[in-house]
Amino acid sequence: MNDPFFRLLQQDAASGARRGRLTTSHGTVETPAFMPVGTQGSVKGILPSQLQATGTQMILANTYHLMLRPGERVVADLGGLHEFACWPGPILTDSGGFQIFSLSKLTRVDDQAAIFRSHIDGSTITLTPERAVAVQEALGADIIMALDHVIALPAPRQAVLDAMQRSLRWAARCRAAQQRPDQRLFAIVQGGLEEDLRVQCAEELSAMDFPGYAVGGLSVGETPAEMYRILDITTPHLPLEKPRYLMGVGRPIDLLEAVWRGIDLFDCVMPTRNGRNAMAFTHHGPVRIRNCRYERDARPIESGCPCPACRFPRAYLRHLFMSREMLGPILLTLHNITYYQRLMQEIRQAIERHAFAAYYYERKAAWESASDDVTAAS
Amino acid sequence: MNDPFFRLLQQDAASGARRGRLTTSHGTVETPAFMPVGTQGSVKGILPSQLQATGTQMILANTYHLMLRPGERVVADLGGLHEFACWPGPILTDSGGFQIFSLSKLTRVDDQAAIFRSHIDGSTITLTPERAVAVQEALGADIIMALDHVIALPAPRQAVLDAMQRSLRWAARCRAAQQRPDQRLFAIVQGGLEEDLRVQCAEELSAMDFPGYAVGGLSVGETPAEMYRILDITTPHLPLEKPRYLMGVGRPIDLLEAVWRGIDLFDCVMPTRNGRNAMAFTHHGPVRIRNCRYERDARPIESGCPCPACRFPRAYLRHLFMSREMLGPILLTLHNITYYQRLMQEIRQAIERHAFAAYYYERKAAWESASDDVTAAS
Repeated sequence: MNDPFFRLLQQDAASGARRGRLTTSHGTVETPAFMPVGTQGSVKGILPSQLQATGTQMILANTYHLMLRPGERVVADLGGLHEFACWPGPILTDSGGFQIFSLSKLTRVDDQAAIFRSHIDGSTITLTPERAVAVQEALGADIIMALDHVIALPAPRQAVLDAMQRSLRWAARCRAAQQRPDQRLFAIVQGGLEEDLRVQCAEELSAMDFPGYAVGGLSVGETPAEMYRILDITTPHLPLEKPRYLMGVGRPIDLLEAVWRGIDLFDCVMPTRNGRNAMAFTHHGPVRIRNCRYERDARPIESGCPCPACRFPRAYLRHLFMSREMLGPILLTLHNITYYQRLMQEIRQAIERHAFAAYYYERKAAWESASDDVTAAS
Repeated sequence: MNDPFFRLLQQDAASGARRGRLTTSHGTVETPAFMPVGTQGSVKGILPSQLQATGTQMILANTYHLMLRPGERVVADLGGLHEFACWPGPILTDSGGFQIFSLSKLTRVDDQAAIFRSHIDGSTITLTPERAVAVQEALGADIIMALDHVIALPAPRQAVLDAMQRSLRWAARCRAAQQRPDQRLFAIVQGGLEEDLRVQCAEELSAMDFPGYAVGGLSVGETPAEMYRILDITTPHLPLEKPRYLMGVGRPIDLLEAVWRGIDLFDCVMPTRNGRNAMAFTHHGPVRIRNCRYERDARPIESGCPCPACRFPRAYLRHLFMSREMLGPILLTLHNITYYQRLMQEIRQAIERHAFAAYYYERKAAWESASDDVTAAS
């Protein structure tokens, strides 16, 4: 029960929500938690010290990108990802599976390996489950992910089944290939939108007793309602005492809905990517800062927000984007990560004070009543 | 003598170098001082708090750019440049003269005005000395600059003479147009590479008793030796008790040479622009961080440097540039501004301890003995 890696501190009475704590050699992570994405070993435009100030506990880095550039041997020679990128806290690396199927030109996938062409120089690269683990061991993250076979949705049932079964076999091979004892390997539940395949995959992986489980293959084209349905039927088949990570999700509302359904860990490019594109998240809905209504607006994006962007008037932030100044994307990225981390902190506190259901309904109502850029009129 | 705006604290015995202090309503500036350039109201990629941590006391913003976008009325409506850009320290705005002659399509210049087309939307804009002052009063900097007529060098003597005489007349009109009592208007010495015209211009402007003087029209195509010669003959004709500002200069060696010749204030895009282009300044010469010799280099750019970039291994900084990550330009910009500010601090301290000449020769010898990227072998 009291696994020193993950401790389940509290379960919500009204929902599947949980308070937990991950303990790694690079520090603890209070869950539910959100990981900003540092694709190439850098959360775009943000210094580690700035990232820590947002409340970020743990970051994600992409194995696929780092394997291609600078190469995992370079990172290992520098002492691993923590030393290379000067991020002192916990790190999770994905397996490369998702990027192989989304970014690269995939040439072939069979039981042995995925063979693909690099999106950087077109060279042919073979990724086996064993190599995915070896690369992640060289990178040295605290949590590493099993290689899985991700397919776009919707997909024919037979294709979903094949990919799910391959992901199961690859998860076993990843575990067998593990040599470093200090990294925690998470397995990934696949099965598309097929409820029975999701249940089967969750149960087979649970029987293999991994230190943590991810729900993968979502946020790849399905509706939010379909995603919530898959979470509803999947999480009850995962071990209660192990952390659960929903990969690549999502919008603030998706995080809230997934916590309700028992998810502990998230990553997504949305706060960073949307920030670079001039969209700021707030409790009152999105603020699209290029909008001309902000030309002379002296207010911060969100009053009460402690982030560096909210020390500036909206008029200045708008000016930065209109003038294509780098500081605009930097500041809105900092705001959005801070927003996500504040949301996660509020969720954790609501669970702690046995008030998560009230928080959940209140938060949803506030978002739903907020029209786009409603704060301009407030 | 003891002008409350500028206090000449100390004069070097062996050179023209001076220690001084500017006092503005937004704080003091210890001179000699270097101002990073925030062209559009932002030092590219750098937060005000980060800029303060580099040792930056004062920044420069470009009237030309801010007049075109967002427009000086927007800035004024937000409370002026300090409030708009959240820079609490002193600010200097240039007059727009240099940008009109370098960036825009100049359609006509006569005694009345410069008429040019905006580089943003091609619209026709008329800038008179009176309007240059009005715009700078709306922006609200602590130091504002007279409109001058800048010409590219080399130029025929008659053209240099005409531009110099026009600059004199415009300086007088700028002063007559001034309405705000809280801004200090600096006049600009022109005269190209013609020694007698520089002397004449310096003397005529000195007789008009401005609170400060700039040397303009340099770093526009002439050699360093020509620039130093012009400084040698110009600064003796400027009042000893007034601050002297060399506009748009320059390389670290140029700052050292100009301090030797009695200059107190500098601005230049070089540390920021070169930083964005992967070139770092050090006491041992430049480091071009994209060089493949840094692929696995665990050392910082410059050991002992307190800047945020020097917490990272060179290998990581190289990776950021090779991967086109924004953090690379941000970090090298921070390093270079820190380098310039450390250089200015060393210069100030050397003057204070009556050792500027020794510092000057030592620093020049170190730079001259440093081949490009010499630190890689050290």
